[in-house]
Amino acid sequence: MTKARLFTPGPTPVPEETLLELAKPVTYHRTAEQKETLKEVLEELKYVFQTQNDVIVLTASGTGGMEAAVVNTLSAGDKAILLTAGRWGERWRGILKAYQANLVVVEMPYGKAVPPAALEQALKEHPDTVAVFSTLSETSTGVVHDIQAYGKIVASTPSLLIVDSISGLGACECRTDAWGIDINVTGSQKALMMPPGLAYVAVSPKAWRVIEGKPNRRAFYFDLKRYQAKLAENDTPYTPANTLIKAQKLSLKRIRQEGIENLWSRHALMGAMARAGVQAMGLQLFSETPNNGLTVITVPEGIDGNAILSKLEKKHGYKLANGQDNLKGKIWRLSHMGYCDPFDLIGALSALEYVLLEAGYPCSAGASVAAAQKVLSTKLV
Amino acid sequence: MTKARLFTPGPTPVPEETLLELAKPVTYHRTAEQKETLKEVLEELKYVFQTQNDVIVLTASGTGGMEAAVVNTLSAGDKAILLTAGRWGERWRGILKAYQANLVVVEMPYGKAVPPAALEQALKEHPDTVAVFSTLSETSTGVVHDIQAYGKIVASTPSLLIVDSISGLGACECRTDAWGIDINVTGSQKALMMPPGLAYVAVSPKAWRVIEGKPNRRAFYFDLKRYQAKLAENDTPYTPANTLIKAQKLSLKRIRQEGIENLWSRHALMGAMARAGVQAMGLQLFSETPNNGLTVITVPEGIDGNAILSKLEKKHGYKLANGQDNLKGKIWRLSHMGYCDPFDLIGALSALEYVLLEAGYPCSAGASVAAAQKVLSTKLV
Repeated sequence: MTKARLFTPGPTPVPEETLLELAKPVTYHRTAEQKETLKEVLEELKYVFQTQNDVIVLTASGTGGMEAAVVNTLSAGDKAILLTAGRWGERWRGILKAYQANLVVVEMPYGKAVPPAALEQALKEHPDTVAVFSTLSETSTGVVHDIQAYGKIVASTPSLLIVDSISGLGACECRTDAWGIDINVTGSQKALMMPPGLAYVAVSPKAWRVIEGKPNRRAFYFDLKRYQAKLAENDTPYTPANTLIKAQKLSLKRIRQEGIENLWSRHALMGAMARAGVQAMGLQLFSETPNNGLTVITVPEGIDGNAILSKLEKKHGYKLANGQDNLKGKIWRLSHMGYCDPFDLIGALSALEYVLLEAGYPCSAGASVAAAQKVLSTKLV
Repeated sequence: MTKARLFTPGPTPVPEETLLELAKPVTYHRTAEQKETLKEVLEELKYVFQTQNDVIVLTASGTGGMEAAVVNTLSAGDKAILLTAGRWGERWRGILKAYQANLVVVEMPYGKAVPPAALEQALKEHPDTVAVFSTLSETSTGVVHDIQAYGKIVASTPSLLIVDSISGLGACECRTDAWGIDINVTGSQKALMMPPGLAYVAVSPKAWRVIEGKPNRRAFYFDLKRYQAKLAENDTPYTPANTLIKAQKLSLKRIRQEGIENLWSRHALMGAMARAGVQAMGLQLFSETPNNGLTVITVPEGIDGNAILSKLEKKHGYKLANGQDNLKGKIWRLSHMGYCDPFDLIGALSALEYVLLEAGYPCSAGASVAAAQKVLSTKLV
């Protein structure tokens, strides 16, 4: 028997009641009921974002949300500081280049985080920066960035802090208002426990002021002002993916019931368990500042990284993610965010250890799960 | 008992097996299986579009697909002819204005279609037109446009013919290649029998040549070249709404099994039935050139249009669409496209007649369903 289990950093597993909601008959999208649903979803998203700012729902991938952040705030030639240390920082770069931003790039090698001091220096040298672009959880490397520290630096300047928290929000602590995040972009398919298809964008008053200063922006579908204009009536300017919005409500209900601090704690626990379990096998963590929703493991010498992932999936049903681009075959990405609990994670560590032992990798049977269990046992109540 | 039935012109009812597919556990989006699924979906979409051209899948509302058609083909100041006779023609206008097109507008009142001769004249006067924008099914009025005639006029010029077939494709005959449609944009939630969330864009070689002549276009998420580059590997540049794509495959299977000509015939039959049934009640059709997926009815004098729709929905479960903007309360929009058959439609006509009689409207009980049934009986085999 092979039982499929999803441990990729997006899409992630979706709760059963959310999936069943998606199987219900489709309804019209311009009704009082749909508006009530959108209103509730926006309220709950504010809770997850930890914000009082406007939250906009876009029918799009996370990348669409990122583009909305760029096209609304920057005119061609406007200066932008890009903090990049991985593929998702590079996604910002791609969008910023497409929109002809005047780019100042602060770059760190894959596996490291961008130090706040480097941002401080860049902002000093470029006080005319319109916006700083950063990534909460760099999914390509497993790094978490110190957004709180970035926020402190940016808050005292006229610049905006714009964060891609697509794979981080709900897994890593992230306080939009308290940390001074002006535009926070996330997606449905990570810790928010939904299929892909919706992007969420929280916009601060400071960001709205910048946006309103760009009346000639060339945008339509991603024109955030058109969405803001519909917020008062709990509506959207264009036909939304209304069945996804209805389903998102159910996954958000779980988050509210657990409580945001408990949600972060559960992920912190799973992050600590995964790191302990991985290191007990003698494996190295790829990230210097690992995040709690995703553990990235360096493939040890002498082991075929692709073959291990293939066996994990085909023989044991565990789907982990490979490295992307140059990192393919060199890292394994084990996600533990969203609808995943410590016992699910123990199973994944067991499977990983099993296939490594089978491949002749020298580790002690049981070391990994025991180490993870030890971490888990510190949380006994 | 109230049983909910959806007769709005998008979203439309979704087949049961498609809904159940959406309730299945979510899977990773970068796998051989997902690529195989996308490949099959693209093949079947080509069949529905009746095209050999590239078909691009966007995770977005139909409006996102329309924006892609604009941003990829036009630079600011480029000349565009807009054919508009309703709210969806106005959607083109909104996007074209946002992208600073040099607009030549050929406009007809709501309820009428834009005559091909008016396009011929406009193209003669503006031979430097880069693209002509039109609407197959004008969902706000129930008009169907003569795209075939537009195609003949545009084909002999350097201009592109760009069509919004969002609410028409699959319901009204539409032959992308034979009619010379250079960019054909549709959405998942109409006759393709899916929830909203995906837009499909068919792009001709002539359109690709125009797009390739605009290397400085400012676009990223809607940059069609980025999607085209991934077609050979059956992949997408950004995380797609992969569960929707998997579900779309099942609804497309129904279309293939029925056959595209039969699909058009079924809609032609339902269109004729709806028109006969409506007119047998002494009601007027709002559209001069009614389309086969949607029948738009003028609310008769002395009848409260909003109250009738409300009663239909709340008491009998039939959800029809109201008019939009100035037409609210003045028209009823009865959709019969996608997962809807003649017997479903008979029920809707029965319900409409019932509430009209109840409201004191003078029509003869049974006249509507009998007239529709008479049309249906001509198709007995």
